[in-house]
Amino acid sequence: MTCPTTKPGMLNVHLLPHTHDDVGWLKTVDQYYYGILSDVQHASVQYILDSVIASLLKNPARRFIYVEMAFFSRWWKHQSSVTQDTVRNLVRQGRLEFVNGGWVMNDEAATHYGAIVDQMTLGLRFLQDTFGSDGLPRVAWHIDPFGHSREQASLFAQMGFDGFFLGRIDYQDKSNRKKMLKMEELWRASESLKPPAADLFTGVLPNNYNPPKDLCWDVLCTDPPIVDDPQSPEFNAKKLVNYFLKLASSQKKYYRTNHTVMTMGSDFQYENANMWFKNMDKLIRLVNEQYLRSVKKDDFFPYADGPHMFWTGYFSSRPALKRYERLSYNFLQVCNQLEALVGPRANVGPYGSGDSAPLKEAMAVLQHHDAVSGTAKQNVVNDYAKQLAAGWGPCEVLVSNALARLSQSKQNFSFCRELNISICPVSQTSEQFRVTLYNPLGRKVDRMVRLPVGDGNFFVKDPNNKSVPSNVVMVPSSYSKTYQWELLFPASVPALGFSTYSVTKVSGRNYQAGNLLGWLRKPKSRVLVIENKYIRATFDSGTGLLMKIENLEQNLSLDVSQGFFWYNASTGDGKSSQASGAYIFRPGGRRPRPVSRWAQISFVKTDLVQEVHQNFSAWCSQVIRLYKGQRHLELEWTVGPIPVNDYWGKEVISRFDTPMKTKGQFFTDSNGREILKRRDDYRPTWTLNQTEPVAGNYYPVNTRIYITLMVHRRLLVDDQRGVGEALLETDTGDKVRGRHLVILSSVSDAAARHRLLAEQEVLAPQMVLAQGSSSPYRSQAAPKMQFSGLRQELPPQVHLLTLARWSSKMLLLRLEHQFAVNEDSNRNLSSPVTLNVEGPISYPAPSTLDPTSVTLRPMEIRTFLASVQWQEAN
Amino acid sequence: MTCPTTKPGMLNVHLLPHTHDDVGWLKTVDQYYYGILSDVQHASVQYILDSVIASLLKNPARRFIYVEMAFFSRWWKHQSSVTQDTVRNLVRQGRLEFVNGGWVMNDEAATHYGAIVDQMTLGLRFLQDTFGSDGLPRVAWHIDPFGHSREQASLFAQMGFDGFFLGRIDYQDKSNRKKMLKMEELWRASESLKPPAADLFTGVLPNNYNPPKDLCWDVLCTDPPIVDDPQSPEFNAKKLVNYFLKLASSQKKYYRTNHTVMTMGSDFQYENANMWFKNMDKLIRLVNEQYLRSVKKDDFFPYADGPHMFWTGYFSSRPALKRYERLSYNFLQVCNQLEALVGPRANVGPYGSGDSAPLKEAMAVLQHHDAVSGTAKQNVVNDYAKQLAAGWGPCEVLVSNALARLSQSKQNFSFCRELNISICPVSQTSEQFRVTLYNPLGRKVDRMVRLPVGDGNFFVKDPNNKSVPSNVVMVPSSYSKTYQWELLFPASVPALGFSTYSVTKVSGRNYQAGNLLGWLRKPKSRVLVIENKYIRATFDSGTGLLMKIENLEQNLSLDVSQGFFWYNASTGDGKSSQASGAYIFRPGGRRPRPVSRWAQISFVKTDLVQEVHQNFSAWCSQVIRLYKGQRHLELEWTVGPIPVNDYWGKEVISRFDTPMKTKGQFFTDSNGREILKRRDDYRPTWTLNQTEPVAGNYYPVNTRIYITLMVHRRLLVDDQRGVGEALLETDTGDKVRGRHLVILSSVSDAAARHRLLAEQEVLAPQMVLAQGSSSPYRSQAAPKMQFSGLRQELPPQVHLLTLARWSSKMLLLRLEHQFAVNEDSNRNLSSPVTLNVEGPISYPAPSTLDPTSVTLRPMEIRTFLASVQWQEAN
Repeated sequence: MTCPTTKPGMLNVHLLPHTHDDVGWLKTVDQYYYGILSDVQHASVQYILDSVIASLLKNPARRFIYVEMAFFSRWWKHQSSVTQDTVRNLVRQGRLEFVNGGWVMNDEAATHYGAIVDQMTLGLRFLQDTFGSDGLPRVAWHIDPFGHSREQASLFAQMGFDGFFLGRIDYQDKSNRKKMLKMEELWRASESLKPPAADLFTGVLPNNYNPPKDLCWDVLCTDPPIVDDPQSPEFNAKKLVNYFLKLASSQKKYYRTNHTVMTMGSDFQYENANMWFKNMDKLIRLVNEQYLRSVKKDDFFPYADGPHMFWTGYFSSRPALKRYERLSYNFLQVCNQLEALVGPRANVGPYGSGDSAPLKEAMAVLQHHDAVSGTAKQNVVNDYAKQLAAGWGPCEVLVSNALARLSQSKQNFSFCRELNISICPVSQTSEQFRVTLYNPLGRKVDRMVRLPVGDGNFFVKDPNNKSVPSNVVMVPSSYSKTYQWELLFPASVPALGFSTYSVTKVSGRNYQAGNLLGWLRKPKSRVLVIENKYIRATFDSGTGLLMKIENLEQNLSLDVSQGFFWYNASTGDGKSSQASGAYIFRPGGRRPRPVSRWAQISFVKTDLVQEVHQNFSAWCSQVIRLYKGQRHLELEWTVGPIPVNDYWGKEVISRFDTPMKTKGQFFTDSNGREILKRRDDYRPTWTLNQTEPVAGNYYPVNTRIYITLMVHRRLLVDDQRGVGEALLETDTGDKVRGRHLVILSSVSDAAARHRLLAEQEVLAPQMVLAQGSSSPYRSQAAPKMQFSGLRQELPPQVHLLTLARWSSKMLLLRLEHQFAVNEDSNRNLSSPVTLNVEGPISYPAPSTLDPTSVTLRPMEIRTFLASVQWQEAN
Repeated sequence: MTCPTTKPGMLNVHLLPHTHDDVGWLKTVDQYYYGILSDVQHASVQYILDSVIASLLKNPARRFIYVEMAFFSRWWKHQSSVTQDTVRNLVRQGRLEFVNGGWVMNDEAATHYGAIVDQMTLGLRFLQDTFGSDGLPRVAWHIDPFGHSREQASLFAQMGFDGFFLGRIDYQDKSNRKKMLKMEELWRASESLKPPAADLFTGVLPNNYNPPKDLCWDVLCTDPPIVDDPQSPEFNAKKLVNYFLKLASSQKKYYRTNHTVMTMGSDFQYENANMWFKNMDKLIRLVNEQYLRSVKKDDFFPYADGPHMFWTGYFSSRPALKRYERLSYNFLQVCNQLEALVGPRANVGPYGSGDSAPLKEAMAVLQHHDAVSGTAKQNVVNDYAKQLAAGWGPCEVLVSNALARLSQSKQNFSFCRELNISICPVSQTSEQFRVTLYNPLGRKVDRMVRLPVGDGNFFVKDPNNKSVPSNVVMVPSSYSKTYQWELLFPASVPALGFSTYSVTKVSGRNYQAGNLLGWLRKPKSRVLVIENKYIRATFDSGTGLLMKIENLEQNLSLDVSQGFFWYNASTGDGKSSQASGAYIFRPGGRRPRPVSRWAQISFVKTDLVQEVHQNFSAWCSQVIRLYKGQRHLELEWTVGPIPVNDYWGKEVISRFDTPMKTKGQFFTDSNGREILKRRDDYRPTWTLNQTEPVAGNYYPVNTRIYITLMVHRRLLVDDQRGVGEALLETDTGDKVRGRHLVILSSVSDAAARHRLLAEQEVLAPQMVLAQGSSSPYRSQAAPKMQFSGLRQELPPQVHLLTLARWSSKMLLLRLEHQFAVNEDSNRNLSSPVTLNVEGPISYPAPSTLDPTSVTLRPMEIRTFLASVQWQEAN
């Protein structure tokens, strides 16, 4: 940050004037921006920015840092060009400085790294476009998220930040760091990237992000301002200055340098910046930061702010919103790619005006640490969902325009947004329809398509007009009160391209080959088995529970029992008044209760799928499924509405019991990317005093692993962390369905399996339906039923992280090596890989500076801007 | 106010941006100014003014009005000369305008008109000195006081205001005015002054002083700001504009012109003025006011804001503070006069630096409508008292310097501030001491001096060294636990001058002539009589109560019984939840309960005084007294601490029962000046629906009359008017003593009696004691024991309202005709009177423009600035 000259040999106190503006929490984003609903929370960002700018202008010595571009960019749009010029000057002079600079200050537990990169891009790009290099932040600033992932630090390091400031870390960790003078250290945030690529100076702020006690001079505070008139009965200047000096030197004790920082601001402060600045003007002596030597390699999860107060509940809070965020990430990448592939004709086309910007912004907003984290108020959560939904619309138009262009045909495209509840009018009512699948990955995918249909027979044809086998199977009885059917057929979609399948209904109950009808049946023997070429899963027909999984290829077998349990959410007890809530997970006891010790089961077996349907209770059921050719077992659970009429909040988990000897060790991903080793009741950098044997061992999981997984929660009391509402979702959030994919594999093969599977789950093919057949579009040529945007598939190591339009003549391209060092020994996928991005010919010894030849080392992300010229239709 | 051009034929909506800054209420003045104790009330005037100025600078179309000079002048002092110049420009351009412009917005019920004039002078003078004529307010603005006195309107008219805006008037009155289109009318505020001298355009604001519902855009409000972005889910601009227009036209219906006003602001608003202005900028269309025709002649007391909600409690709330304010008024006039008479040597002299400014400012602050009204929080009341006490100090030095100068002697002056509790170390312990009495009136006064002394004999000598009769009498047993004595002697003090008396203690119990010792005795016959040449009062020895008063001069006799009663303060009942509190008087029933049906009595009779001491209870006693030569009966009551351990709040009254046939009519003064006729259960301008037969007939009384008088109150619950504290004084306020002076007189003589008596009570001689004898000061001449600042006494019609130094070469002089027209028929005191202010020779036909000859008509106040040159000591 831009500070006045420091004084060596003296204690330098850095006063950091800042405001922390949540992009939604107790109020929606628009309510915060304008300052609506002041009775819910007094907070208005428009006034904060008005006020800060005015105050900065009054005294050139004043400084301010601003963080959230979701708000700043909106405010900027509303300013006159005179004001904009004034602000540009302030930024140039370092009087207004941006830190972090993302669209939001994203959550670090429930976010996927791709979405983090996207939201940072949106914010930083706004700054670059508006202020040039003057506006680019030098430090990252995550002063409110509830724990910190290593991946976040790695990403920030790779983005070029000089430092990273944290607010919340575990209270024991912090106390230890103070003692050991480790409040500042170097974070080595990747085991794969070569230092210093993922090294980042990381400082823990002394008082989270709040001002020191008694020195909060905001309209939202009640601390007395400095009264420097000795005649006034309220004269306090002398006392306050003494206090401040004492505070600074006692705080300095925990840091190695002669520098100590005080965060002068907090949530939505500086609405009347004059109050702050007028009082701080008397105290300001800002100086520069210095670096330190100790190194951190793990992360800051889980976060506890006191005994029994583990912020591990939000890893699972509002699973429906979390799922919607992931679906939207998937769809946004599709939308971005098609915009990049097709160019301006994707934006203006036969379906109207298509636009990726609203979904980009909505997705960026969803990364906020009270959004995808599930810790906002219910009405704010509803608004987040609404923002996503509003973003989908113009992206659907864009995708339609692009597909029309690429396929050279105009179809009645229809996006079935309600497939999760088996609703899709086109497939359910049409005699004939087309299914176009777009694959956003750099490699071809094979996938089972599943669509709700009316009871009947269907013919399915592939892009080459060849017949494809299909089944119609019954959905679980718990899904629907009436009989309900879904059509199944295997599809194959080329890299960065689409395939179009045609489906025709055959009237009458005409059971012919390739269209087997799968009726639900009751098991008759003691054990029930589902299997395919690769996997066998065995169930106990008596209890209805999974007993064993076998990997038939590798000849592995694991006894495993799986079922659903719930913890009685604590509402406080003798040890602590802490309740379980949106943030905090605190089970009432160590042992969860089973939802049921057994499940009613039935099964479906066709040539394409084998499923066991388990019904645990009126509000808890599961389908365990094996598709033909699938190498993992899929467990699709449906939980909710969780009953709370006994006045007990419930935290529902899916538990896998196995006889594996793990010594309490397990592994979890970091924002869906690198993997961290965990150990029960253990922290790598300090001696843990474990106060919560369950909650204190929860870690965020985005894409992989676990032994117990919390799936849904419904709570009756607030956990006193500010949201002021019990996590008691009704309506959209009360009943949730999710899937767990289980891989049983040898160590040598595991990484290849879970990396490539996760990629396919996160970036699944996008399905677009169209009634009837297609009509030609802008050409007399026959419609294209299949397309790929790549001349050659990407090798399995390489993930196409981003392909999006950057400007009218530029594309943004991010390529990522998606394996860590030493992760894959089977196929050598953990080695560096070199791509020729221009054509099929690879140069023998490519320079890393040669843009046509790109070498990626394990876990490396490389970003490119490429000139582009879109071809007119051939 | 300075408004843009209006549009004839259209509805013109005047948006009036304003802040209402109480000079003390829930917080002290300094706490409000700086913004201390935000948890008590979020309010900080320093930030309000900072913010308003900044916002005005942003847009030349913006306007603001400011009211309270106590705050503004302080803020002004803290500004740089650059800011001061900027503000001067804003004032010159009419963008910042002052209204009212007094030091405070004074209370209208409990204030004395002299103090009102003083506090307005302090504020207006600051404006004149700072901004010249640009700064002078054109309208008066009393939008919060709890009822409005006619005298206030008269004074404002005489000060030259063009209009007067009111906020609070009785809800029935307001409803009637709306119906009758009398929300604006001409107030003819004096029956004596010739129209239009006391005529003032008076407008009742539509919504007290608050913004219309839903249009409050302050940091303290929760109304949504205008969202004019149609894309925002919070878009509301259209709805708000429609609402505003509807509101304006429905509001306009109650006014006769095409103009309607909306007060855009409230208590301590505009701390972040940008919020208000940013939203108002979209709505502003300011226009000019117009006058109306109907005429009001009465006042706006009592004020009720709903059935059962009469704001008549504050007439008596905190009687100790009210008394202290009156004493301070008296002392300030003495201080002012001596400063004027002596010049700079009063400020710097043998006693140090004397200064009248602190007491002037403290007294101005005390006029605030939450100060002398008794409606501030207890700690704020304590601060008010502290401010007065702090003001007394430098005035005492000034008075000492002045008396030394005028008497040409230096004495050990001592100001006995605790005479009310019979404490004065000098008189109680000295063998010899002097008593100097300064008389601030334009006429000589004769007065009984009363000083606490030790038991013994005293010789008293007058200024001419002649012996003066004196008595030592016992004080009532209820005053003190031990025997306690007070010395009495008659003194005479010349106009605007002083007399010094010498007192010498005679050792031993030497009962000699002129020093009769008055022991308390018990009555022995059935009736007890006290009397002097003019009055006889008769008591029933059985009940101990007053039975009869006789005017021996006029041969009048009135049966009158007097005693103390209390109302059980309502805490709400079935009719209304309204409780009695600091503002509201609401007795629990119509009939008060007697403190006691009888009193224990004893009496004192000496040649100088006759007293009956009544003891009603442990916390209620009274002395009824007749001094030699006194034409009124004095009733000095002592009440408190009012017991509330029965959990009943109590409102204690002194009730006079007489067989007089008054038809419910009575008369009360208006701020101690003109008199208004009252009638039980009646309002002159509308048909009253009386909901509170007791509280609804209470009127403020400052100097005269009544049938029942509330003397003290102690309440256990708050009355929900914002102060948030029960009126439950402890410590300084719990025990209070007061005096009622009763005159029994013929109508023709009454005015002369009560006018001149009130004048003497309000401006009593100031007593200064000095131990030992005097030493010469700056001259070898003998000390002067007597002095008068006037060559000739003023005639009885003329009251010297103000004599004070205005500047180093100017004096401020206010002369007042203190009789109303037709009030005195006996001595023709209600006629105009002409004074020659230069010398004893009166011109035969003086022009009113001739400054040396001043004609005063009944109730007229005339103000002069006079050049002055102080003589060096002769």
